[in-house]
Amino acid sequence: MMTKTLRLGIAGLGTVGAGVVKIIQDNAALLEARAECTFEITAICARDKTKDRGVDLSGVDWCDDPTELASRDDVDVVLEMIGGEGDPAKALVEQSLANGKSVITANKALLAYHGRALANVAESHGASLAYEAAVAGGIPIIKALREGFVSNKINAIYGILNGTCNYILTSMRETRRDFDVVLKEAQELGYAEAEPSLDVDGYDAAHKAAILASIAYGCAVDFDSVPVTGIRFITLEDIDFAEELGYRIKLLGVARSIDGRRLEHFVAPCLVPKANPLASIEDAFNAVVVEGDFVDMSLLVGRGAGAGPTATAVVADLVDVAQERNTLTYNIPVSNLKEMDMMPETEQWGQYYVRMQVLDHPGVMAAVSATFGDHHISMESVMQRGRSPDMPVSLVLKTHETSDAAMENAISSLMRLECVLGTPIRLRIIGA
Amino acid sequence: MMTKTLRLGIAGLGTVGAGVVKIIQDNAALLEARAECTFEITAICARDKTKDRGVDLSGVDWCDDPTELASRDDVDVVLEMIGGEGDPAKALVEQSLANGKSVITANKALLAYHGRALANVAESHGASLAYEAAVAGGIPIIKALREGFVSNKINAIYGILNGTCNYILTSMRETRRDFDVVLKEAQELGYAEAEPSLDVDGYDAAHKAAILASIAYGCAVDFDSVPVTGIRFITLEDIDFAEELGYRIKLLGVARSIDGRRLEHFVAPCLVPKANPLASIEDAFNAVVVEGDFVDMSLLVGRGAGAGPTATAVVADLVDVAQERNTLTYNIPVSNLKEMDMMPETEQWGQYYVRMQVLDHPGVMAAVSATFGDHHISMESVMQRGRSPDMPVSLVLKTHETSDAAMENAISSLMRLECVLGTPIRLRIIGA
Repeated sequence: MMTKTLRLGIAGLGTVGAGVVKIIQDNAALLEARAECTFEITAICARDKTKDRGVDLSGVDWCDDPTELASRDDVDVVLEMIGGEGDPAKALVEQSLANGKSVITANKALLAYHGRALANVAESHGASLAYEAAVAGGIPIIKALREGFVSNKINAIYGILNGTCNYILTSMRETRRDFDVVLKEAQELGYAEAEPSLDVDGYDAAHKAAILASIAYGCAVDFDSVPVTGIRFITLEDIDFAEELGYRIKLLGVARSIDGRRLEHFVAPCLVPKANPLASIEDAFNAVVVEGDFVDMSLLVGRGAGAGPTATAVVADLVDVAQERNTLTYNIPVSNLKEMDMMPETEQWGQYYVRMQVLDHPGVMAAVSATFGDHHISMESVMQRGRSPDMPVSLVLKTHETSDAAMENAISSLMRLECVLGTPIRLRIIGA
Repeated sequence: MMTKTLRLGIAGLGTVGAGVVKIIQDNAALLEARAECTFEITAICARDKTKDRGVDLSGVDWCDDPTELASRDDVDVVLEMIGGEGDPAKALVEQSLANGKSVITANKALLAYHGRALANVAESHGASLAYEAAVAGGIPIIKALREGFVSNKINAIYGILNGTCNYILTSMRETRRDFDVVLKEAQELGYAEAEPSLDVDGYDAAHKAAILASIAYGCAVDFDSVPVTGIRFITLEDIDFAEELGYRIKLLGVARSIDGRRLEHFVAPCLVPKANPLASIEDAFNAVVVEGDFVDMSLLVGRGAGAGPTATAVVADLVDVAQERNTLTYNIPVSNLKEMDMMPETEQWGQYYVRMQVLDHPGVMAAVSATFGDHHISMESVMQRGRSPDMPVSLVLKTHETSDAAMENAISSLMRLECVLGTPIRLRIIGA
């Protein structure tokens, strides 16, 4: 068979970009054998031309403006690894697609905010918009969802989508330290950004969850309407209580079809039963559970970030382009994407974990239990750790299935009790 | 876009075949939206025409000879779900490919024995030979390996590839019963075949492992040269000892590249550390770990058998055919497949678990330890359960890394000791 050549324009040479160049160079022979294609990097746009990235960039043309890649005659495919939902990433992707060039991107924010519009440009110009690297790099979840499980109605898709949060939660448990201490260490080690909000406040996971939901349910998720809760308020005590109850705390992105019509969709720290393999996915690993009407349950695990795993996803997309294995951005034509009926948070239901500070005196447990009873919430267990008469102690409980609205009301009532201090926190139990 | 029609010829209407028909009918609208294709079943060959399979087969033409499907003008794609490595399955697949018809098969034995020859026919006639359903139905592992991880050198691929064995091992541990009792129950429940050898002696797992190794290493594995050990000799005591040492016993198919040249390839029950998520994959679930040079570690989990999961894989292949997403059978042209240098069992090495019966009297542990020392095998721990002076008791030990040849010799020496009764058993420790 004939080996063809694909000429690449690369925008962004950070961790991922340099990783892509490294795979293309280190495994060139392997790629040529498997993809029947050689990849030639013709043009690059990156801030620093002189930095040593451990890869050979001789003979490559450097551009100052990334959007230049969109119109160069010597670029067949554009790899966007700049990041950020706005320009220049957006302009580059848009113009490249409009010029009929396929685009491979690792940019989850761009897709979460502008996926539908960009998919439309791709479709109307016969170009591919490929983004395996945007969600859980080391896991071929986009391919699994769009192609492997193509024949299934997806009942639910949920998982650990942010490695930094999973690393922090794992480290808190293993080293018995508080969130702030572990975050600081993670920042020093380079596992967390100096500005950690995108990760620890759940937005990065939410970008990825929105992308997965869009594919699974053939809808354009309005990213701003997804409720997002991060992990800053999780204490070592929560982790200990969860452990004692048989759970691990994981930041989950969840999208679940309710009656085949409405979408329950949120990002929040949740309790996962230890018998669920998801609970044993630790450190910086990501994991996604897919529940389909025929396939039952499938779980995919891998590294969510880092040069090698993310670049593996980018190059997989590249080989798909080389082999002309095309798939629509969201698996169906953009014109067929539905407006999804998002279930309001108050109507969500499930089992909950609740932790509150109470004054340790006789009758507290009775008062708390009565309050839940008043709101028709039945409790599965209540635990108080330690004894310090008339001093604040933690009270933890686990409910049976109930609605979020009932929980909200119960918590308001609890806060009016004299024995309850501060605001009780609640976490969903998922994966039971 | 235009919706096209693909006309299907189905051979075999057992669990999987009926499942395929059910997905195509139940999710017809979804498939048309996602695949831009309708699937029309034009011809079927199955033993019993009258049996109620819960699907609508009106208007379908019934053939008596499955190979008839290979030459019918009204069949575009042939689905082979007869099973078995010989005819008629082999003849049907061969003739269909030779006639330029793409074939989708769930037949692992056929591929393990004749994969290379069939790939050759497919390639020379421009047809696809698709077999996602042949390995771990509910896991899109063929797609992940051929496409998702296409850019990586695979260092190792291993996993739980037989659901029946995993179910039996799980049930032994959970219900504290012996192999024979659990097998009998599994047969009564329909989880195990009346003739269980293909499953419990490891051959089914070996067929799948050989297919995975062929793709991962671009080689034609000579199936008959793969060492295969089943689970019949695993006792409840082994499971308990493993648990105490921090492991679960799993039947694993393993293929590992040694120095990038030789292939370590076997199927055997192994000890998996509980911290490895593979250890928590229980019941009839399958799981595959892929270790690549860039992606690091990825784990894929799902149901390995059953109508829904396996049919999901078959229909995924069908949509790939409909969308003309083509991939070579083993990802590289057949002419480029290597002859793999298989590492002889004696040269394999790793950590081992050993269980033996000894007479409980002073000096036994010293004699056993000295024997291992004589063969330069260093031990990590030794355990004796119970005390019954001068009666047989079990002695269990865990070694540091050593070669299989040294283990073989040490075991021969042990058997010459008066205090050692019968033949010690050894299991590899994998995934540490």
